[in-house]
Amino acid sequence: MENILKLINEKKFIEAKERLEKENVVDIASFLEGIDKESVVKTFRVLPKDMAADVFAYLDHEERMHIINSITDSEISNIINDLYIDDTVDFLEELPANVVKKVLKNTDETKRKIINNFLNYPDSSAGSIMTIEYADLKQSMTVSDAINHIKKTGIDKETINTCYVIDNNRVLLGIISLRKLILSSNDILIEDLMKKEFISVNTLDDQENIAHLFKKYDLLSIPVTDNEKRLVGIITIDDIVDIIDQENTEDFQIMAGMEPNEEEYLKTSVWDLAKHRILWLLVLMISATFTGNIIRHFEDVLSSVVILASFIPMLMDTGGNAGSQSSTLVIRGLALGEIKLSDGFKVMFKEFRVSLLTGSILAIVNFIRIYFFEKVSFLISLTVCISLFFTVIVAKLVGGILPIIAKKLKLDPAIMASPLITTIVDAIALTLFFSLSVVLLNLPV
Amino acid sequence: MENILKLINEKKFIEAKERLEKENVVDIASFLEGIDKESVVKTFRVLPKDMAADVFAYLDHEERMHIINSITDSEISNIINDLYIDDTVDFLEELPANVVKKVLKNTDETKRKIINNFLNYPDSSAGSIMTIEYADLKQSMTVSDAINHIKKTGIDKETINTCYVIDNNRVLLGIISLRKLILSSNDILIEDLMKKEFISVNTLDDQENIAHLFKKYDLLSIPVTDNEKRLVGIITIDDIVDIIDQENTEDFQIMAGMEPNEEEYLKTSVWDLAKHRILWLLVLMISATFTGNIIRHFEDVLSSVVILASFIPMLMDTGGNAGSQSSTLVIRGLALGEIKLSDGFKVMFKEFRVSLLTGSILAIVNFIRIYFFEKVSFLISLTVCISLFFTVIVAKLVGGILPIIAKKLKLDPAIMASPLITTIVDAIALTLFFSLSVVLLNLPV
Repeated sequence: MENILKLINEKKFIEAKERLEKENVVDIASFLEGIDKESVVKTFRVLPKDMAADVFAYLDHEERMHIINSITDSEISNIINDLYIDDTVDFLEELPANVVKKVLKNTDETKRKIINNFLNYPDSSAGSIMTIEYADLKQSMTVSDAINHIKKTGIDKETINTCYVIDNNRVLLGIISLRKLILSSNDILIEDLMKKEFISVNTLDDQENIAHLFKKYDLLSIPVTDNEKRLVGIITIDDIVDIIDQENTEDFQIMAGMEPNEEEYLKTSVWDLAKHRILWLLVLMISATFTGNIIRHFEDVLSSVVILASFIPMLMDTGGNAGSQSSTLVIRGLALGEIKLSDGFKVMFKEFRVSLLTGSILAIVNFIRIYFFEKVSFLISLTVCISLFFTVIVAKLVGGILPIIAKKLKLDPAIMASPLITTIVDAIALTLFFSLSVVLLNLPV
Repeated sequence: MENILKLINEKKFIEAKERLEKENVVDIASFLEGIDKESVVKTFRVLPKDMAADVFAYLDHEERMHIINSITDSEISNIINDLYIDDTVDFLEELPANVVKKVLKNTDETKRKIINNFLNYPDSSAGSIMTIEYADLKQSMTVSDAINHIKKTGIDKETINTCYVIDNNRVLLGIISLRKLILSSNDILIEDLMKKEFISVNTLDDQENIAHLFKKYDLLSIPVTDNEKRLVGIITIDDIVDIIDQENTEDFQIMAGMEPNEEEYLKTSVWDLAKHRILWLLVLMISATFTGNIIRHFEDVLSSVVILASFIPMLMDTGGNAGSQSSTLVIRGLALGEIKLSDGFKVMFKEFRVSLLTGSILAIVNFIRIYFFEKVSFLISLTVCISLFFTVIVAKLVGGILPIIAKKLKLDPAIMASPLITTIVDAIALTLFFSLSVVLLNLPV
């Protein structure tokens, strides 16, 4: 690709264009992101017209802005008219208002109207991710009519692998795959071939649920209809793959106690990174002082047997780990639809049995370690290990049920992950530990 | 769907079959999973022949086993011959050896050979997830030859949306989309239409990398070639979507300190759940005693100022949270390919600045809280807050760099998540805290 840049600098544009034609648009976009701003615009202008919009769609925000600000209005207009509507909307959504105006000014009126409609769909709704470039057929067409229709109109469609059969009011009647068209005889009517039972979504449906439908039914595209069942767009699998990653990233971030952020790590400013982290850190820090107060409450216990303090980290960490193992599995199960809200009892029972098993192993290993190897007194060893056993049980029950309760309360289950679970379990673990110490070691409160 | 079962029980098989024909195979499969074993087999036998294999492919392991054990050899043979090769292999891989034998006995010899080949590909390799049902063309064909060829052979192919052009030795020369075929004139040669620059993978390539290629290039399918560049199969996007989820689930599990497990939570036995959790719990519990030893080392410090113990949970939790925020973002960035191994320095510098910001805010808020509101002495408040500040810095640096180091050592970066980071940061935080107490409060060691 370096050679192409050399050709451009030597003003050998025709040769450069021929070379660019052989490259993949994704690779050209990554190449442009690595070179200086001036060369970006130069190379972009040399691109064959039919590749320019595609490359543009794969560029980062920064490069797109730079290009839009460097090229002429008519060049902008060419790109926008060649972009699929979903890519156009993605792009416009991240632009400052004045640039949006500049771009829209260069768009023909029909497309402008459509774009304005799209910009009004709520974030993460089917409407905001769909595209309008689909192939539509009529039920009265024969297979050969249909193929001829696709031949005439298919060139601009994002996918023609699935075609949509609509009536005169654009109401969606059925779907038919290009495969089925090709494999059928020419004179069969579409009406007799199309699938009348199909899966569709409404413009306002949430992208996460749509992703579930794609996964469940192994779809390549899905039609989007309005409240009157009229076809208004389609969503294709390539956008869904991005959404799956995006939703997962969001879960990872929330589960680590951060506010979700779509931006790539290395492209996020220090300020923004700090902003997304500080709130949870503050909340959890202040909650942890609650645990500190428990220790202060048992200050006398601690001053008579200072060695008890040395078991605090082990109890806290093990409780936190045991709890977040459970909460992670349940959060993930809920996200993938494998665990339902009604499974609360099943989950609790399962976690209870798992905690009995893991809790006893941990308690026994720990007893052997501290009583036989570290020569801690029998009663203290016993206190520590009983506390550990019950801590694991409580941790796993809390970790197992809180995500389900959160979901019942229409909260994101992912907030019930390691940080919050750890804080809750810490408090319980230490209360248990010190109360038990008072009883077993016969100490003053 | 309940009605269909009723029809079957009333032996109205033809009506039941007609009703089943209108249902989606995925929905039929979920329906079968909810009814009693006997009805499963009955309903399965009523299914139209061309739907049976599809429904079978969507069933759970348990139901599949039950069906295979209840139907005749010739019925088994029908299903296996109708299954795509990737589904057959998935299915066979989870069967006990004697049932595999029973199934293979009922498969024709060619298919049996292919299946045996497939079973030998390593887990998670391209070979193990590919299918052999693809449409192949010759470069000397015209568009109308090609379409006729597809019409004749396409019915059994998993996808014909992309066709593969091979020479007489099956070496892959190019790819061409069905869309392009349809939109081109009949007499053009495939040779002149096909894309000669295409993305392909080797049978031994890892599924995670293949998923990256699908995402990067928005592919719907990818050809798989052997070392001699001969086409041996294709991988389709529906399998990739499952792999993306599977890889994410694996990361979630490892990051919560568990050994990865593909089984659904509710279908995993208590024993297996415990087995996947206990190792890490033990390792981390024993590591945490290291932190306990630090406290024991400073026992004299603690007995002179017992109140210090009450800040241990806050320091440990905040350190753990700060560290796992950083490690989560870096682990995710590495998994999505947004952060590269060479970015270690950039990450450290970024985390250092974020930690200065968040660390100072936390330290100041905490100082105000404990000095002004909880009336803790000035020197102790100062000790706690300085320790907190440095703990956050250390936590973020450790959390930021350990996943990158893990990846450099060819380990899974996901192990450097909350549980391990917390344990490491705990030890550092408490050492810092007690050492600083000794100095600032002028205490004996």
